[in-house]
Amino acid sequence: MTQPQRILVIGGVAAGASFAARARRLSEAAHITVLERGPDVSFANCGLPYAIGGEIGSRAALAVQTPASLKALLNLDVRVRCEATEIDRAGKRVAVRQLDTGATEWLAYDKLMLAPGAAPLRPAWPGVDHASIHVLRNLQDMDRIAAAAANGLRAIVVGAGFIGLEMAEQLHRKGLSVQLVEAQPQVMPLLDAHLAALIESELRINEIALTLGDAVEAFEPLGPEAVRCRLRSGTVLDADLVVLAIGVQPDTALARAAGLQLGPRGHIEVDAFMCTSDPDIYAAGDAVSTPDRVLSEHRVAVPLGGPANRQGRVAADHALMPNRARPYPGSIGTAIVRAFDVAAGITGWSEKRLQAVGQPYETVTVSDQHHASYYPGAQPLTLKIVWAPDTGRLLGAQVTGHQGVDKRLDVLATAIAGSLTVEDLCHLELAYAPPFGSAKDIVNLAGFAACNLRDGLVQAAAALPATPQEQASVQVLDVRAQPVAQAYPAPVPTINIPVPMLRAQLSQLDRSRPVVTLCSYGKMSYFAARILAQHGFDVSTFSGGIKGHLDPRTPAKLPTS
Amino acid sequence: MTQPQRILVIGGVAAGASFAARARRLSEAAHITVLERGPDVSFANCGLPYAIGGEIGSRAALAVQTPASLKALLNLDVRVRCEATEIDRAGKRVAVRQLDTGATEWLAYDKLMLAPGAAPLRPAWPGVDHASIHVLRNLQDMDRIAAAAANGLRAIVVGAGFIGLEMAEQLHRKGLSVQLVEAQPQVMPLLDAHLAALIESELRINEIALTLGDAVEAFEPLGPEAVRCRLRSGTVLDADLVVLAIGVQPDTALARAAGLQLGPRGHIEVDAFMCTSDPDIYAAGDAVSTPDRVLSEHRVAVPLGGPANRQGRVAADHALMPNRARPYPGSIGTAIVRAFDVAAGITGWSEKRLQAVGQPYETVTVSDQHHASYYPGAQPLTLKIVWAPDTGRLLGAQVTGHQGVDKRLDVLATAIAGSLTVEDLCHLELAYAPPFGSAKDIVNLAGFAACNLRDGLVQAAAALPATPQEQASVQVLDVRAQPVAQAYPAPVPTINIPVPMLRAQLSQLDRSRPVVTLCSYGKMSYFAARILAQHGFDVSTFSGGIKGHLDPRTPAKLPTS
Repeated sequence: MTQPQRILVIGGVAAGASFAARARRLSEAAHITVLERGPDVSFANCGLPYAIGGEIGSRAALAVQTPASLKALLNLDVRVRCEATEIDRAGKRVAVRQLDTGATEWLAYDKLMLAPGAAPLRPAWPGVDHASIHVLRNLQDMDRIAAAAANGLRAIVVGAGFIGLEMAEQLHRKGLSVQLVEAQPQVMPLLDAHLAALIESELRINEIALTLGDAVEAFEPLGPEAVRCRLRSGTVLDADLVVLAIGVQPDTALARAAGLQLGPRGHIEVDAFMCTSDPDIYAAGDAVSTPDRVLSEHRVAVPLGGPANRQGRVAADHALMPNRARPYPGSIGTAIVRAFDVAAGITGWSEKRLQAVGQPYETVTVSDQHHASYYPGAQPLTLKIVWAPDTGRLLGAQVTGHQGVDKRLDVLATAIAGSLTVEDLCHLELAYAPPFGSAKDIVNLAGFAACNLRDGLVQAAAALPATPQEQASVQVLDVRAQPVAQAYPAPVPTINIPVPMLRAQLSQLDRSRPVVTLCSYGKMSYFAARILAQHGFDVSTFSGGIKGHLDPRTPAKLPTS
Repeated sequence: MTQPQRILVIGGVAAGASFAARARRLSEAAHITVLERGPDVSFANCGLPYAIGGEIGSRAALAVQTPASLKALLNLDVRVRCEATEIDRAGKRVAVRQLDTGATEWLAYDKLMLAPGAAPLRPAWPGVDHASIHVLRNLQDMDRIAAAAANGLRAIVVGAGFIGLEMAEQLHRKGLSVQLVEAQPQVMPLLDAHLAALIESELRINEIALTLGDAVEAFEPLGPEAVRCRLRSGTVLDADLVVLAIGVQPDTALARAAGLQLGPRGHIEVDAFMCTSDPDIYAAGDAVSTPDRVLSEHRVAVPLGGPANRQGRVAADHALMPNRARPYPGSIGTAIVRAFDVAAGITGWSEKRLQAVGQPYETVTVSDQHHASYYPGAQPLTLKIVWAPDTGRLLGAQVTGHQGVDKRLDVLATAIAGSLTVEDLCHLELAYAPPFGSAKDIVNLAGFAACNLRDGLVQAAAALPATPQEQASVQVLDVRAQPVAQAYPAPVPTINIPVPMLRAQLSQLDRSRPVVTLCSYGKMSYFAARILAQHGFDVSTFSGGIKGHLDPRTPAKLPTS
């Protein structure tokens, strides 16, 4: 079988550049042309916020490759400022316009790769076209925001997802006062709400003004270099600079015009080898949807660099060595963000997403130190897992904390890739020396806690009783040491009996009413629940503890002075 | 089915303490007695070296629990300084001697747990009983070594495994001059030799005097507080303090005397529920061998805290809820050590261990930065994987570097637990944001490299030509930029053609002789190999690059000034 000779790539950043590089490694003979609408190819778009804030000191660091370097290394014909305007599928050619001259030509292809990416959303809010209102997609957007940040004092970031959080931190780093506005009642809407609490606290500690559960209604100009943002609640916020970070939409007008099959939200639908509905046209990256790797009856679009790069590689393998190409297994959706000194991330499904599609699940949240507690510098981590009730298979996980968040996410993403169960998590044999971990890592603890639930050894209380009526119907037993319980009271009325006294003081509890046990991290409350269960109480434990419900800088134990 | 009422545990540290704690959670009614020969229970033995060096500032931090705290929390009857001297299996009782009084009594059991641990090896070398020669097992050993370190200037550490490396660093931290002696020709004998190079370099940079491939023959006293160590080579080393860290042997005399089935190296053999050959006696921790989780036809003893704790838990589940207990899946052998500013670790099988048992395997080594190279602070990592040639299943991995070693080990240990293949490694969807990782993590790269080998896209050169004869028969092509190649020459004669010039300069190469391509990290040399292979050359690439063969502080690229 002869290899295709004319390979055309539309889009020269993550997916397109990976496709082209892999294609060249598989075929020295092919003519590979890469079209890029912007002036840059293969730049590090994930680094843009950090370059605005100055953490990445040099703009040049982001320009990973240039047309010249790609010509030299990979013999690619890279054409920047060239826009594909039409795909003639029958004629297997693409109309290309040079943006600087307006000249148009047709380029023939044997195989075509579409990697157009996704564009930041810019809703049709009144006044949204003001020059102080930006989105962040490329180096030119970055330059504009950096210039505005150098001249301004007040910034509004709209959207508290990954990019929004990064932008809020980086603008704060540049000395601006930052307002962060999110329409959902929590930051990081991908996470379940209680996992977002640590990030919200960290933002407030660092003087980011958070406005949650309120949405932009309109912008009004305050002269040429400032703008007023009016929220649905009536609140008005003024700023010299606004960054919209409310999500992206696939840039698929060209694919739609060519009659390729698109999904309900406009993503190009591809098969396991990244083939579109036209067998000579591939697509990869932010513009496509793929099967969900966890629940394959769902399709998912994960607009992140990792999937884009690997999808581009799969497509190149299929285009150039179809018999040996291996399928793309679908996307899991693993993502992480750092916000000042904390991090948060997710892999797979959240509880709220499972609820939204009506998928049955069980869940538990655990907390522990990120390495051996006796080794200096141990910091608390919180880990939530969700699993399928019938098989125990892990469906997703969320992690927040100061250190080691990325490690646990990667372990759990690998566990999901291996279709591991919560039982399997118990026996992951992870690397342990005091500077790196614990003999029982928090991932093992999550497995233990899940199995305890599955075995009926303990029941989990999903929430503390909120209303006076609920609070009257159950007894909340706080098993922390008395000084801790007094210094950092639980958010609900409690009875305080520390675990060491519990066996002797069971008579203080009313056997006719259910008991919910709580402590800082969920370990002692589990111990207490086991004692009470064996003594015939109807008991559940508040898993994960109340640490996340207090100021996160609250010590779990008082210093033993 | 009634639960056992009398539970006896011999050994109160990792496995024994975990067993007892879990047993109590499953049964409030049982009488649980824990016998510990030493004065301490449930102490953090992995922290001992760090407390000697002062990184862990307080001895109390290591005393995780006391008999009183275990009584209060778990209602355990903990008896320290009590030694089990005989097991009467027929009578289901254990003879116990109080070490302080000499008094002996019989304790009856329904279920018995043996968690005696392992003792540091102290070979019968002449003079080995000198008071300056120590092993490190417990808090009392720690106190003795700390006292000797406070009074001494010169230390010898014998054995460059995990404990030996930790002790060398911590004694250096206390201001002693440290000699590290290892009989094998490399440090960390568990690792394949080329992976140990980074650690060796780091030790030398930190003024640890390394003596490799030389063994202790005898010690001679130099007065009461110093000793001379004579090596097989004739070298003599003098020291005020010697620490023997050459491994451990299972402490199983009691089990042997009781007629329990032991393995060839003296470990107690247990089934998947940690049952010994006596169904009422369990064993767990450093004293047992279990099936190897990767190659289950082999048995393995992994004397580390993680397996010990989890084995103790499995045994308790089986003792107290046999119908719901889940089997121990076997040990993988995941281990990590930090040495000054670098870390190294292993999970599963090494190449040398596979060779030793005659198991077929393939391998590749890759190098990359630990997070996005454009984000400040990126540090090189080296990762080696071994897999089964027939199925591609991952058999083991080794990682060295400055940052992120533990994360990759944990991902790969999870991959092994899930029986993942090298193909699966390509598509792990790991957490990526610039401070945490790369769009293509080094674990993905290892999968790509392995698949390239399996697909025949590239051949790997296991070593550079060593002899003049070998060097005459192949052409070694250095594809690094000329200034780098000149500043940091490869360890063998080479032709230098950087990749960007290669396509135009193919005529400089002799088509009649094989070519080995090399570069700093193995990426450019792979690119070059693909170019040459497609032009008909017999070519292989030196995977992982030569960075590990140079001073590890050598930059891969010269600063672009």
